[in-house]
Amino acid sequence: MLRTHTCGELTKANDQQEVTLCGWVDRVRDHGGGLFIDLRDRYGRTQVVVGESSAAEVMDTAGKLKSEFVISVTGSVRLRPSGQENPKITTGDIEVNASDVKILNEAKTPPFVPGQKDLPNEDLRLEHRYIDLRRQKMQDTLVLRSRIIKSMRDYCAEHNFIDVETPILGRSTPEGARDYLVPSRVHHGKFYALPQSPQIYKQIMMIAGYDRYVQVARCFRDEDLRADRQPEFTQLDMEMSFVDSDDVIGMIDGMMEKLAKEILGIELQLPLPRLTYDEAMTRFGHDAPDMRFGVEIVDLTEIAKKVDFRVFKSVAESGNFVRAICAPGGASVFTRRRIDDLTTFVQEDFGAKGLAWFRVEEDGTLFSPIAKNFKPEELEDIKAKMDANPGDLIMIVADTWETSCKALYALRKRIGSELKLYDPETMHFSWVVQFPMFDHDAESDRWNAMHHPFTAPLDEDLETLDSDPGKARAKAYDLVINGYEAGGGTIRIHDSQIQSKVFGLLGLDEKDAKERFGFLLDALQYGAPPHGGIALGIDRVVMLFSNLDNIRDCIAFPKTQKASDLMTEAPNVVDKIQLEELAIESTVEELPEEDA
Amino acid sequence: MLRTHTCGELTKANDQQEVTLCGWVDRVRDHGGGLFIDLRDRYGRTQVVVGESSAAEVMDTAGKLKSEFVISVTGSVRLRPSGQENPKITTGDIEVNASDVKILNEAKTPPFVPGQKDLPNEDLRLEHRYIDLRRQKMQDTLVLRSRIIKSMRDYCAEHNFIDVETPILGRSTPEGARDYLVPSRVHHGKFYALPQSPQIYKQIMMIAGYDRYVQVARCFRDEDLRADRQPEFTQLDMEMSFVDSDDVIGMIDGMMEKLAKEILGIELQLPLPRLTYDEAMTRFGHDAPDMRFGVEIVDLTEIAKKVDFRVFKSVAESGNFVRAICAPGGASVFTRRRIDDLTTFVQEDFGAKGLAWFRVEEDGTLFSPIAKNFKPEELEDIKAKMDANPGDLIMIVADTWETSCKALYALRKRIGSELKLYDPETMHFSWVVQFPMFDHDAESDRWNAMHHPFTAPLDEDLETLDSDPGKARAKAYDLVINGYEAGGGTIRIHDSQIQSKVFGLLGLDEKDAKERFGFLLDALQYGAPPHGGIALGIDRVVMLFSNLDNIRDCIAFPKTQKASDLMTEAPNVVDKIQLEELAIESTVEELPEEDA
Repeated sequence: MLRTHTCGELTKANDQQEVTLCGWVDRVRDHGGGLFIDLRDRYGRTQVVVGESSAAEVMDTAGKLKSEFVISVTGSVRLRPSGQENPKITTGDIEVNASDVKILNEAKTPPFVPGQKDLPNEDLRLEHRYIDLRRQKMQDTLVLRSRIIKSMRDYCAEHNFIDVETPILGRSTPEGARDYLVPSRVHHGKFYALPQSPQIYKQIMMIAGYDRYVQVARCFRDEDLRADRQPEFTQLDMEMSFVDSDDVIGMIDGMMEKLAKEILGIELQLPLPRLTYDEAMTRFGHDAPDMRFGVEIVDLTEIAKKVDFRVFKSVAESGNFVRAICAPGGASVFTRRRIDDLTTFVQEDFGAKGLAWFRVEEDGTLFSPIAKNFKPEELEDIKAKMDANPGDLIMIVADTWETSCKALYALRKRIGSELKLYDPETMHFSWVVQFPMFDHDAESDRWNAMHHPFTAPLDEDLETLDSDPGKARAKAYDLVINGYEAGGGTIRIHDSQIQSKVFGLLGLDEKDAKERFGFLLDALQYGAPPHGGIALGIDRVVMLFSNLDNIRDCIAFPKTQKASDLMTEAPNVVDKIQLEELAIESTVEELPEEDA
Repeated sequence: MLRTHTCGELTKANDQQEVTLCGWVDRVRDHGGGLFIDLRDRYGRTQVVVGESSAAEVMDTAGKLKSEFVISVTGSVRLRPSGQENPKITTGDIEVNASDVKILNEAKTPPFVPGQKDLPNEDLRLEHRYIDLRRQKMQDTLVLRSRIIKSMRDYCAEHNFIDVETPILGRSTPEGARDYLVPSRVHHGKFYALPQSPQIYKQIMMIAGYDRYVQVARCFRDEDLRADRQPEFTQLDMEMSFVDSDDVIGMIDGMMEKLAKEILGIELQLPLPRLTYDEAMTRFGHDAPDMRFGVEIVDLTEIAKKVDFRVFKSVAESGNFVRAICAPGGASVFTRRRIDDLTTFVQEDFGAKGLAWFRVEEDGTLFSPIAKNFKPEELEDIKAKMDANPGDLIMIVADTWETSCKALYALRKRIGSELKLYDPETMHFSWVVQFPMFDHDAESDRWNAMHHPFTAPLDEDLETLDSDPGKARAKAYDLVINGYEAGGGTIRIHDSQIQSKVFGLLGLDEKDAKERFGFLLDALQYGAPPHGGIALGIDRVVMLFSNLDNIRDCIAFPKTQKASDLMTEAPNVVDKIQLEELAIESTVEELPEEDA
């Protein structure tokens, strides 16, 4: 090795030792008689002193150093003068008195400096990713990512999971999102597709008797990107045989306990809380609620039926809902003007008809422009039902179930963050279970599978499949962390009669089903065990564990929202001969000047 | 869980215990009063007895069982009757007396049975991969693969490597093998390429200061496939900063020691033997020699110069070589007829002019059709130089250096295997180092990089770059296991002057270099540390550790030599609309009926 130690390990114990360090020049400071060089590597920072006792040529070399030069320093470790220690870093007690400094490589002045306080715009950072990746937070995040994945894999190995690699060059399925395609050179006119998930392969592994499968799997979706989506993403993909929902959930409970302990140093209480889908919608208006704080939704429909206030009464009597949340201490934060903003927010973004509100005054009375429409005892009823106290703000949405869910979920989210109702460093893990089997598509009057067509119904809802499919619940479970869906899975159908029934409800006859899922249906006939699994979104787990809000900061080489890699300039044009060999032609006549 | 135990864990210690097992029916045997069911899962096999004490309906269910049915069995463990124990399996002392048998899933009669002795043809196995994957050897291999990868990752984590995922959707480079392309939907007319290796990304990670990088990386090459090549393959990809060749080699030495111990239970002696490239060619005629046995190449050129035998003399005097190997005990195995076969073999496959041979007779004399051309003392010289004994067969190739290397390497390989000169279960690990920097392409009279254009020359050969580039040796190293290249790597150039010189030798001016390696060259200017790395071929390592000779048997879902997946029928046709969205057209008018 070109070094004896890293820049993060020298302490008092190394006093007087002769060492060689290698790293990047973080900063050079001229302190009169000599230079202080902050030498940086992945492991830390060490102060190097060139001066007094250093030879002239060493001084000379040191004088040429600039930010981001790569150097090697040989010298002896000594204690820093009393009062000059830096308790914030491991090496803060010592410095290296340089007897030799070698420039291993120079560096052009970088477009930005990894240590600078204000980050430059993201495009510049992505273009010069090798500079951006030097930032402490980026390094911390990628090290954390590596540790999280290691910890997950160790856990799986301890529990007898076999790590199996499934193909990236697969077959396009007409299901789900848009596929990335790869033209075949050997079979002209045919295409591979990059996998949206290894779903079918992992089910095949169960049919083949592997009992427990795991893979940190790259998945691909050619969809328009949202802030937290990437064209390629990574999931921890698992499948188990001879299990029911509780077994899969319990397995992940244990994994989260281990992760929380090893990565965050916190003890989770197991089992992690489980909410049914119905409960989640009733209490939080969403299937991935942020449970770091309360402010649950309260149903005021029964009270609304009794009042004279027309808006509430008519909604309540038409079978719709009057539901509310109470923002603790919200009265002083949400002024009339800000309430107007919130009203516009729920109207424009969620199609709510409006937002009613009551402010709880110091004396406990409810103030609101609509208060005059209520009898005093009705106001008291509302206050009691909302468990509201002086200073609180009650916000009410009277609308359909769906709209009230969406609007109140979004309001609750804003309230939680704006009133700082939780410590952003805390982590809350929970499960939402028993999702509906089907979504009803009003337009086509058809049932769609809420997860995928192989999801098994709850045993007690088997009959509901015939009598009231919309009410049938699935053996489906989502892991929710801090209001994000961190993963989800289902128990699969292994009984061909139930599978036929579900295909029927989805409007697939035998021929359609065969066309769409042919080889899996074949495989299921040759001895398929009961099985189920889950996939966790690793990019998102890393984002949550790192307390970041941009998924691109959790990935070493991410793509922009236009699916470009700004560093390598991918995608890019290719030679005509490459396309000829693949028997394809581009239909684009001329490329725009700058479309990347 | 639907089971209390797996099929591989019940022993005497569980006697009288009430258990539930799940698994596949491996075999049902009718033993008069009842049925013996061999129940199988990944963990083992357990004998289940249905009879005497079982209820009629249980008997009834058991009567319906066929091979590969999935069942659950509840019953009590009891010792097998004395004399009926099976010491070959863990559960051989017990059986389960079934009180209940449930059919969890039926199975159609499979096209072949995982337990059958003669494997059906490979296409049928690949088409029904879920059956083939049930074979014991397949399961053992995939479990071994999972363990090998786990062990490698653990080792890397212990040594501070960070596991970083690099993109699959990358940019096409005009270098190396043919790329798989992925048309972009967002940027019409542009394409991503699947990575042939993460080479450039891992160098970027070093420039970004990550110090030690590792990834189990999927790589892609759209080349015509050989028996041990796949369109997608997996490599353990590593890179380290502030290192020289010895550091990387030492790191892998340690990894091999750990693997050999954990996976094979053998102790490796470290450091692993290292041969220079020159030595490997001189002694074995190849840069990846099988060192499980001796039979080294002996150079007889000096002797040949002195003899009257025209064929040898003229070759030796023209600056070419007379080289030989001695097959111990080969005289009786290689009859005249078989020697004729070998002669045709070296002539037709390697362009050798011929094969001369001497048989060492019982009395120590050399017999050969050409013996009459040699004086007795010359024959004695040859025998002594070859260290040949009665019963041995000496085979001689008089030719150019290259041809004699190729022919003798191939002969040595056949001799080793046909004379069983080594135990096929042994493993031999070694390094070949100091490869030449350049290959000379006679046709274009140009130098090609033997590894890649970023490979650093040996420090002592820096001047040779100018004076005699063909003699310059590289900081390059290959790991060789049992005569296979299991991995290879290099130290990279980090000095821009040396890089320019190498580009110059390769005939690349600054503009060409920029076009081909643009962003890496940019990155190298912003503070690149000395760095180097290696990539190990995981599919091949698994093949060698499993003592298999077909790489497809080491991969869960491999492709055929025509790059097809016979189970999913990938690649396949796609909807026209998919191509339209990607702004490409297939130039194939009509697909052949059956071209997969």
